[in-house]
Amino acid sequence: MTDVQNQTDKRGIKIQRTGITKLHLPLIISDGGKSQQVTAQIQFAVSLAANLRGTHMSRFAEILTARMTQPITPIEVEKILSTALKRLSTDFAEISLAFKFFVKKISPVSSKTSLSAVDCEFIGELSRGSRMKFTLGLIVPFTSLCPCSKEISEYGAHNQRSECRVKLTFADADKLGAVSIEKFVRLIEQQGSSEIYPLLKRADEKYVTEAAYQNLKFVEDILRDVVTELRHVDNLAAFEVECENFESIHNHNAFAGHREIL
Amino acid sequence: MTDVQNQTDKRGIKIQRTGITKLHLPLIISDGGKSQQVTAQIQFAVSLAANLRGTHMSRFAEILTARMTQPITPIEVEKILSTALKRLSTDFAEISLAFKFFVKKISPVSSKTSLSAVDCEFIGELSRGSRMKFTLGLIVPFTSLCPCSKEISEYGAHNQRSECRVKLTFADADKLGAVSIEKFVRLIEQQGSSEIYPLLKRADEKYVTEAAYQNLKFVEDILRDVVTELRHVDNLAAFEVECENFESIHNHNAFAGHREIL
Amino acid sequence: MTDVQNQTDKRGIKIQRTGITKLHLPLIISDGGKSQQVTAQIQFAVSLAANLRGTHMSRFAEILTARMTQPITPIEVEKILSTALKRLSTDFAEISLAFKFFVKKISPVSSKTSLSAVDCEFIGELSRGSRMKFTLGLIVPFTSLCPCSKEISEYGAHNQRSECRVKLTFADADKLGAVSIEKFVRLIEQQGSSEIYPLLKRADEKYVTEAAYQNLKFVEDILRDVVTELRHVDNLAAFEVECENFESIHNHNAFAGHREIL
Amino acid sequence: MTDVQNQTDKRGIKIQRTGITKLHLPLIISDGGKSQQVTAQIQFAVSLAANLRGTHMSRFAEILTARMTQPITPIEVEKILSTALKRLSTDFAEISLAFKFFVKKISPVSSKTSLSAVDCEFIGELSRGSRMKFTLGLIVPFTSLCPCSKEISEYGAHNQRSECRVKLTFADADKLGAVSIEKFVRLIEQQGSSEIYPLLKRADEKYVTEAAYQNLKFVEDILRDVVTELRHVDNLAAFEVECENFESIHNHNAFAGHREIL
Repeated sequence: MTDVQNQTDKRGIKIQRTGITKLHLPLIISDGGKSQQVTAQIQFAVSLAANLRGTHMSRFAEILTARMTQPITPIEVEKILSTALKRLSTDFAEISLAFKFFVKKISPVSSKTSLSAVDCEFIGELSRGSRMKFTLGLIVPFTSLCPCSKEISEYGAHNQRSECRVKLTFADADKLGAVSIEKFVRLIEQQGSSEIYPLLKRADEKYVTEAAYQNLKFVEDILRDVVTELRHVDNLAAFEVECENFESIHNHNAFAGHREIL
Repeated sequence: MTDVQNQTDKRGIKIQRTGITKLHLPLIISDGGKSQQVTAQIQFAVSLAANLRGTHMSRFAEILTARMTQPITPIEVEKILSTALKRLSTDFAEISLAFKFFVKKISPVSSKTSLSAVDCEFIGELSRGSRMKFTLGLIVPFTSLCPCSKEISEYGAHNQRSECRVKLTFADADKLGAVSIEKFVRLIEQQGSSEIYPLLKRADEKYVTEAAYQNLKFVEDILRDVVTELRHVDNLAAFEVECENFESIHNHNAFAGHREIL
Repeated sequence: MTDVQNQTDKRGIKIQRTGITKLHLPLIISDGGKSQQVTAQIQFAVSLAANLRGTHMSRFAEILTARMTQPITPIEVEKILSTALKRLSTDFAEISLAFKFFVKKISPVSSKTSLSAVDCEFIGELSRGSRMKFTLGLIVPFTSLCPCSKEISEYGAHNQRSECRVKLTFADADKLGAVSIEKFVRLIEQQGSSEIYPLLKRADEKYVTEAAYQNLKFVEDILRDVVTELRHVDNLAAFEVECENFESIHNHNAFAGHREIL
Repeated sequence: MTDVQNQTDKRGIKIQRTGITKLHLPLIISDGGKSQQVTAQIQFAVSLAANLRGTHMSRFAEILTARMTQPITPIEVEKILSTALKRLSTDFAEISLAFKFFVKKISPVSSKTSLSAVDCEFIGELSRGSRMKFTLGLIVPFTSLCPCSKEISEYGAHNQRSECRVKLTFADADKLGAVSIEKFVRLIEQQGSSEIYPLLKRADEKYVTEAAYQNLKFVEDILRDVVTELRHVDNLAAFEVECENFESIHNHNAFAGHREIL
């Protein structure tokens, strides 16, 4: 059977990334020693030399299928990319694994336990001869309460659900074992006006309502507090932050965004 | 050229609906004499007799393309469906036109004018020999403020953006000329704790914050108030209501739903 | 603390459903003896008596949290709903659990094994004193190849990814143990022009291409073949089917839909 | 009334962007002398000096509301951003306007006219003292037919709907008047295996089927052909291209991506 993909290409364009996207697989994610089975949406690609017509699309699914039973950590992501470099005879590979990861939440007064879903993404980029560049993406929800609304109103203050989207790029591949989803979720959710919880009894609801009312934050305040925290994280090479408030007094949102290379 | 669609089918199954979906077209929507050009997402289908293999898919786009320059009202929807019955030689046709419709909002203190987008849907169903059954779908945003949170807390109260989704089915096709998008948007947005606005100056924000704090409503309260209003609407044959609060203290939503045939 | 939800309501409206929606939890789904951990999106609601102002929203999350470690089957769904009737002192409860479920696929020539994600939904509705009405929802992908395009063209034929969305409602609650996700996925995916697979080597791609080219089906053909199969399923009380082709020659889709009560 | 936003901030962080997002407004887009009213989704932001606590969120909606009746071109976008720099006393402003734009399509044999929706985005970035950097985003649909599938199969070949997403950044603000949505849509849709159309009669369907079967392209082929064309566009400073095939033989997609600074 002719291998049309392997034909020579004469257009002279090296393609930066070609591969598969929107593939779903069950994966085991390991975070700080604890494992969770997740449903991952996957994008997986390699660069393609200028003289080759196409890549071998079936090999991406093969490489992934072989890894489904082993816990995935950042270190394991580097091994997957390394396999791709070899199996697809190329010099650059990248992968994104996006999944909901569950973090335990204990309600602040009644101490009820529940699980909160956090949107999480592992992004790895590997060039032949280098160590992987690893980025952890998180979308962390919390509540925000508007300082202006409180200041100008005789009673009450508008508040709303907010989310903070971060992308954290790590500098030293040898320390990837210390990257912790849960640690960063905890760090970020504390920058809103109050944490939020799947399960709140009335005493908890009183606590959360009053806590938010005493911890006034514009979307810019939350962004700056997250930035301040991230500047102190060890081993971080770069970060992106976006905070978005689903405004209760508008049908559009307020947001703030910021990137830094450290 | 053989017309494969026109082949005889022997499976003996009359199909209830077959046609096209997710087609986008610019349409002119006429509401109470005022017209707006909108971007509509369209689903358009007919029934198919048991002895026919397939419908003629290109005719749906042809019928719609011919109507793009005329203002669409419920009465016009009936004409489109009537054309489909003839052109596709069938006894049932249905259409859904979904679009964002803009309603003028004037801020409560500074009287600043802005436009608020409401998700709107025209649904028509026509059986040969009958008049059309017409349904108006709306998604109307507002703010809600939790009575429990206010009651139990020393200060503040959690509030959030909410939306009310209604489907209003009209009884008497001769009175379709009186169906008004804007009238129903106004009716529904008044059932929340406060209306919301794209453009609010600080004096308006104070007004909205205080108004919501004095107009406490659970999601069930809003639902019941909408139901009470809809029971008094002339010419309504049936309605469905769903209210949903994007809870500021949780990462999930509270909702309430109800249907009635009048 | 005052329980505002428990206040008497005087509007005289019994609400059909009130509860929570878009809650995410990890659940264990058991299908035919085999279990999978999934990430479920959940809606959970009860009816509310006319004289009560609000339901107790925190109890939905409490009931669910207590069930996370037990395998969920249709029978287990009935127990969850029964608990809701008691804990929320009401006469009707309903739940929807939506999740991606993975089904093993073996490529037709090279016999490579991979996993295909199917969107799945368990819907239970329980009225006090009755047995549960259970509905299984599935979205099953396959490929479709257009008979008209093949007939009129000298070579080739347009084909595309398609999906079939079914909702299967079961009649006899005592036989819910026999409801099988995997069995219905297999039944439905065989009604397209060809099954599709996450992992295909070249010999498999040749097989799938040729198989589809010899198994021509309009969207109406697929719908009728699914309907014919479902009419013969034991213990089915009703079904809904929608087939949709993501047309490769248009930027809109063709679809067909049908419902029956058996 | 205290202006809390105007308070001094001591965290020492200049924020790169803060503003509003997911606002919807009707806008008039002017392209090559022809105007269309569209429904735009808008993000509009400015930078915020390190010593200021918050921006004035209401001014974004005010600036936009004042522009709704004038045709929007890239040059007009620059004026909007310039107004933002003044009204919000800052040194950087950016805006994104995303909308469906309709392009006329004439079917290849029967010459039937219809309109095809293209997802379009105007992105402007303006720093004080500079001219605007303008980026045109487009998502253009077409069909692709797999060379491998045709080569290895005795008959047929899998094909599918594809889309090409481009972001075109222009170098010389004085030549923005020559940026044409329609010209770039035409350029890109010709790089697939065949153009697609909302309205095709049978003679057209034969034409499109056969044209695609004779114009075989992997996702990498399409990408390279788009890149080749874009390298020759006047006045372009940079581009990003992503092509994605909604594979008819898989439930995931194939894609290729590439960026260049010219």
